[in-house]
Amino acid sequence: MSQEFIKSKAAVAWEAGKPLSIEEVDVMLPKAGEVLVRITATGVCHTDAFTLSGDDPEGVFPSILGHEGGGIVEQVGEGVTSVEVGDHVIPLYTPECGECKFCLSGKTNLCQKIRETQGKGLMPDGTTRFYKDGKPIYHYMGCSTFSEYTVLPEISLAKVNKEAPLEEVCLLGCGVTTGMGAVMNTAKVEEGATVAIFGLGGIGLSAIIGATMAKASRIIAIDINESKFDLAKKLGATDFINPKDYDKPIQEVIVELTDGGVDYSFECVGNVNLMRSALECCHKGWGESIIIGVAGAGQEISTRPFQLVTGRVWKGSAFGGVKGRSELPEYVERYMKGEFKLNDFITHTMKLEDINEAFDLMHEGKSIRTVIHY
Amino acid sequence: MSQEFIKSKAAVAWEAGKPLSIEEVDVMLPKAGEVLVRITATGVCHTDAFTLSGDDPEGVFPSILGHEGGGIVEQVGEGVTSVEVGDHVIPLYTPECGECKFCLSGKTNLCQKIRETQGKGLMPDGTTRFYKDGKPIYHYMGCSTFSEYTVLPEISLAKVNKEAPLEEVCLLGCGVTTGMGAVMNTAKVEEGATVAIFGLGGIGLSAIIGATMAKASRIIAIDINESKFDLAKKLGATDFINPKDYDKPIQEVIVELTDGGVDYSFECVGNVNLMRSALECCHKGWGESIIIGVAGAGQEISTRPFQLVTGRVWKGSAFGGVKGRSELPEYVERYMKGEFKLNDFITHTMKLEDINEAFDLMHEGKSIRTVIHY
Repeated sequence: MSQEFIKSKAAVAWEAGKPLSIEEVDVMLPKAGEVLVRITATGVCHTDAFTLSGDDPEGVFPSILGHEGGGIVEQVGEGVTSVEVGDHVIPLYTPECGECKFCLSGKTNLCQKIRETQGKGLMPDGTTRFYKDGKPIYHYMGCSTFSEYTVLPEISLAKVNKEAPLEEVCLLGCGVTTGMGAVMNTAKVEEGATVAIFGLGGIGLSAIIGATMAKASRIIAIDINESKFDLAKKLGATDFINPKDYDKPIQEVIVELTDGGVDYSFECVGNVNLMRSALECCHKGWGESIIIGVAGAGQEISTRPFQLVTGRVWKGSAFGGVKGRSELPEYVERYMKGEFKLNDFITHTMKLEDINEAFDLMHEGKSIRTVIHY
Repeated sequence: MSQEFIKSKAAVAWEAGKPLSIEEVDVMLPKAGEVLVRITATGVCHTDAFTLSGDDPEGVFPSILGHEGGGIVEQVGEGVTSVEVGDHVIPLYTPECGECKFCLSGKTNLCQKIRETQGKGLMPDGTTRFYKDGKPIYHYMGCSTFSEYTVLPEISLAKVNKEAPLEEVCLLGCGVTTGMGAVMNTAKVEEGATVAIFGLGGIGLSAIIGATMAKASRIIAIDINESKFDLAKKLGATDFINPKDYDKPIQEVIVELTDGGVDYSFECVGNVNLMRSALECCHKGWGESIIIGVAGAGQEISTRPFQLVTGRVWKGSAFGGVKGRSELPEYVERYMKGEFKLNDFITHTMKLEDINEAFDLMHEGKSIRTVIHY
């Protein structure tokens, strides 16, 4: 059985810890239930850097990284009905099949339909669509948006408004939705609530946007890098705390500042000590803390159970609790209505050929998001 | 200014670690906002034993223990309007003032109005109402139901149906409400849900009742003492697990048994390792674990944050999240309608004079609840 291929420019991660290599790869055309997408823009996220570093225990190489993209449907495989050629789509690393126990529960966005193969860098049929000189290259998070042409399962595509600029709404494919969704979907922050945001990277800043949209009365931004405070303020934060300015635990500072603690807190770093601070700065009786950051392998969170028995709630959130196909298009619509901006996040744009520079900028703390334009 | 006193029979805890001593004490008549109650029945709870042991860092001596009582209003102080002489009441160690930030939030039952004085064994004005030979004896949890006559703040009394047998509904003053309320108020278990209950003491058994009333489809009862399984079954438990029968962590056993984990779990022991098991036996995506048990001072709970990021929720519950004055009377009504029974819990009844025997039975694991009849 012969298969057809299309040539694509891609940034390949041949091995952990090495720069990406720009290559012309062969992309196998979509099989049944799959879709060929031409990526027009993609953000470069910390998770890409984490996997490239080799610290990600699930990382496989060689692979094509990238998971925060936007693109246009180029070709559909047999049986695909929910998108057609020309549709604008955002790839989803959290798919939505609508059929699995998780989707049917209505309680979670964590569709498990293709989790096993996706975790191994493969399509649902257990094979890859990327090749170089006949040798396979693995997929990444089911997206691989660092290739101009990529193949995804139909269930991993959110069809969005064609009027939306893909070079901006691509950020809704990961970081921005993760932060905004944690506030609006997972915590359901209500008008007048007090909020603390730990860490002012892309996700923390997005959480501030979400809290502003939710009309929180007080949004406390916490970071050890005070250069982040200007943008945080522009996005709606009302109070700014640098933990280095205090001798006591930062949760105590926040509890005093807020007459008992905040209604909601969000950990956007991935630091287990901060996760504890975030929980313990919540108000007795009702405060809820949401973990968004991803901690290192094997690390654990701790607290005294009394913190929970006296009414605090400890939760987490992945992709902001947003169901990709049914709810993400609505985020794009709210963006189109001007409810929030994305260009504040885009500190740099560049061509795929320069993508290693994007990683350098991120490591040096000089960028919020670099968007690659194909 | 002279004060009037009334004589009362009471079991006094003169010091930690010693048996209670039956005494005739002097009870000062109620001041403004206070109520004199004649206790007719009281349960003996593990928390009384915990404080008596000396392990409770907040324990003060000499004191009159007991916090699970039922009684009749004997006299009201100036300004008391919500109860009158002859009313039947259940003393509340968690009051409900209706005015503090906590009560006004509507989000919690943890009224803080008199927390500071109550924690010190005193009435809200900072003094005690109990004396022996002119020397003060402290209150306990704002209740001191091991005295036939006791004085409580008006906000610490739930007025209940006079038809209800106080020698049974006194159990709603603590353990039974704590377990049932955690299921119905804190977790809001829905029809068809799967539930795991860790620990089959009075609270765990009450949680089973709550889960049965909520029409949970599967109620998994977990204890290392299999003699508890019979009553658990009678109350509605469907599955029975003795962790000693397995070589692997009990959370893994439950996850396998339930095809992914339970919808809700309840820790009713106070063991921080079990609290972790209870969280981790919950279903990915939506499982909620409620800590009810009280851990030893300084002990901490731990887990990997991934457990929360993938959708599990960690909560706690005190007095079942039930607001004492506004919601507890409804529990009594449901009892009166026959929705649940209380006599299954009452394994022994005795006179106050024999109360030390009640502690012995509890320590030996021979009783669920002993109810003292005055």
